[in-house]
Amino acid sequence: MTTASAVKTNSVEEQAKKARKAAKTLSILTTKEKNEALHTVADALEAGYESILSANLTDLKNGEDKGFGAAFMDRLSLTKERIFDFAAGLRQVAGLPDPIGDVMSGWTLDNGLKVEEVRVPLGVIGMIYEARPNVTADAAGLALKSGNAIVLKGGSSALNSNQAIIEIMHHALEKTKIPKDAVQFIATADREATKQLFTMKEHIDVLIPRGGASLIKAVVENATVPVLETGVGNCHIYVDKEADAEKAINILINAKTDRPAVCNAAETLIIHEEWLNKHKNLLADCLKKHGITVHGDESAAAALPDVVPAGESDWANEYLSLDLAVKIVASLEQAMEHIDRYGTKHSESIITENRETAKKFMQLADAAALYHNASTRFTDGGALGFGAEIGISTQKLHARGPMGLPALTTRKYLMSGDGQTR
Amino acid sequence: MTTASAVKTNSVEEQAKKARKAAKTLSILTTKEKNEALHTVADALEAGYESILSANLTDLKNGEDKGFGAAFMDRLSLTKERIFDFAAGLRQVAGLPDPIGDVMSGWTLDNGLKVEEVRVPLGVIGMIYEARPNVTADAAGLALKSGNAIVLKGGSSALNSNQAIIEIMHHALEKTKIPKDAVQFIATADREATKQLFTMKEHIDVLIPRGGASLIKAVVENATVPVLETGVGNCHIYVDKEADAEKAINILINAKTDRPAVCNAAETLIIHEEWLNKHKNLLADCLKKHGITVHGDESAAAALPDVVPAGESDWANEYLSLDLAVKIVASLEQAMEHIDRYGTKHSESIITENRETAKKFMQLADAAALYHNASTRFTDGGALGFGAEIGISTQKLHARGPMGLPALTTRKYLMSGDGQTR
Repeated sequence: MTTASAVKTNSVEEQAKKARKAAKTLSILTTKEKNEALHTVADALEAGYESILSANLTDLKNGEDKGFGAAFMDRLSLTKERIFDFAAGLRQVAGLPDPIGDVMSGWTLDNGLKVEEVRVPLGVIGMIYEARPNVTADAAGLALKSGNAIVLKGGSSALNSNQAIIEIMHHALEKTKIPKDAVQFIATADREATKQLFTMKEHIDVLIPRGGASLIKAVVENATVPVLETGVGNCHIYVDKEADAEKAINILINAKTDRPAVCNAAETLIIHEEWLNKHKNLLADCLKKHGITVHGDESAAAALPDVVPAGESDWANEYLSLDLAVKIVASLEQAMEHIDRYGTKHSESIITENRETAKKFMQLADAAALYHNASTRFTDGGALGFGAEIGISTQKLHARGPMGLPALTTRKYLMSGDGQTR
Repeated sequence: MTTASAVKTNSVEEQAKKARKAAKTLSILTTKEKNEALHTVADALEAGYESILSANLTDLKNGEDKGFGAAFMDRLSLTKERIFDFAAGLRQVAGLPDPIGDVMSGWTLDNGLKVEEVRVPLGVIGMIYEARPNVTADAAGLALKSGNAIVLKGGSSALNSNQAIIEIMHHALEKTKIPKDAVQFIATADREATKQLFTMKEHIDVLIPRGGASLIKAVVENATVPVLETGVGNCHIYVDKEADAEKAINILINAKTDRPAVCNAAETLIIHEEWLNKHKNLLADCLKKHGITVHGDESAAAALPDVVPAGESDWANEYLSLDLAVKIVASLEQAMEHIDRYGTKHSESIITENRETAKKFMQLADAAALYHNASTRFTDGGALGFGAEIGISTQKLHARGPMGLPALTTRKYLMSGDGQTR
């Protein structure tokens, strides 16, 4: 909070106003001007990696003093390689198609009035996030490429790292056509600053929370600024009675263990009892081999070894670990009722060789991403080919699933006439 | 509140749950099944118009007793013709293309995983509105055609009329494939019922408020369910120094007087001082001839007769009457600053013969609809060729401007594989 680009708590509104003003300038820059700026920032981050690492050491030291856990410390920790990855990410975003200015549709009314629907930036994005310092560079890159200013409020544990990144970005932007005011960083650990963002409708067009369930809930419940809800994934794998055993096991293990801490990891396995009767030994061996802890009710305990008794909270839990809730059902309908009740509308997968059963699941389950015979891990902007993503929307309005650059845009209808009246 | 289909206040959650369940059935009906149902409902409304008129008489009598104003009574009042218009509206919606099931995009990943982005209904729409009983039929028609269930909460002044409409709709739906539970009407004047809708995230996917500024503000500020903000239109006409006088006057008069009570009517005239100096007599004559009351500051009073002194509130006011705020500026930039400050992001128009000036305005002004040499009155689903609309979005997320059927949809990503893992 003492570096040159740091800004005091009581100035959150001033910062948002500056972002609004900068957004106007940014909104009409050419694709070339924006891409050049992103490359300039990427180069500067690489050149300045040592100062970021040094600030990061301070955050890590503070984190140790506060006794943060290993997973948290890992998310907070930067290396030269991770910083070079930020730069690579910015260059990748520079390479993506620019959505701004796209004429999405156009027509002429009988009276000669020309109508064009044109894609434009949202304006000012408010980003509220937790420990990962990479979000600072990633979110700024996506916002700038899509012509938006951004107000960043990162977690207090990464304050020094984030400030070091922002200082380098600001200095770099001064050499470009993008006004440096287009990237605002709220340099305080004070939670009041976050709350101020919740209601700043005049200056901020959308809030995007990225982090744990409690952060997202706080934003959704308290913000009057429109919110793009992201990320909580209580994802289910439903193994139907007609599931191929090898596919089912491979997909389950991949979805649960490949990266347990991410939102597209599986949290609950729903198994048709007929399948379970046939394959319980195979399943038990696999779960044990991969160190997965099973939480289940009595019927699960009767079929599988070492089952931890599951309560209501297990069905709703996003474990983000090698824990797995197991629910046994007698029909597709029961499986879907369970998903309707406990799912977070993120990603759900059915494993079955029966196409009709799969079709019913895909039609009636309500989530951003539905899979037939594939792992939920593909719900990711990179994996699905969207390029970089700013988060995964679990709401239905505006954007659903991985949000790439188009999710950071809106539209204007432009009508050109020569005196038309109604 | 005593008719057969009326439901008690404490059952709002029960009604929303029924809507959620009906939405599943409705979501997979064919276009033909939905269209047939809409025609059945339209026929029933025509056949039952007398019972609606009789219920409407009760509402009108209650309104008189409460001393409601003429404009309010007019919005509340039904005639045989107006009821037949509801029916015609439903038939028109039946004729519109069905957005549901559209494959919006599709591709195959290198690993063979097939990806399809499919348009699906939002699920359950909560509609909160004021006196106009036509919204009951119109909103239900749009919701059902787009595969959504709807929970309607109309204004208490129209309670009897709305109940009569709903009763006919419910009886008609019983003869169709659409479950009658897909249309829920909250039959109470109790405001607590409305508040219950605000936070029913589990059962309601989106709230659409339609009515005055205070209703919309209450919903936006208190709802945790995502909101589609509609309708408040503080629309500006900017007459540039290079404006053609005839176009300027025609457009101003049309935008102000054609239907002063609607959201796309002009509320503020911004005039470049050079244009005003040349045309002040012509303008004054026209304003007088059309019975327009001018509110302005000292510079307006110096140029025009009978100016009512304007305060800060005039610039922000949606008069919805033959009142007009007049602001005199020395440049395009001053005009745009004024619009940035007081506009509601609905519709703004520039009158100028200079294409470069118009381009700058269209690029930098921030609103759903921007006009060059045309009246703001065209911001309307019907006028722009969208077919029927459920409202005009003044927010930037999800939908902007007139919202037709596609605004009532979201998407799912459907992934089909044969065992793909990451």
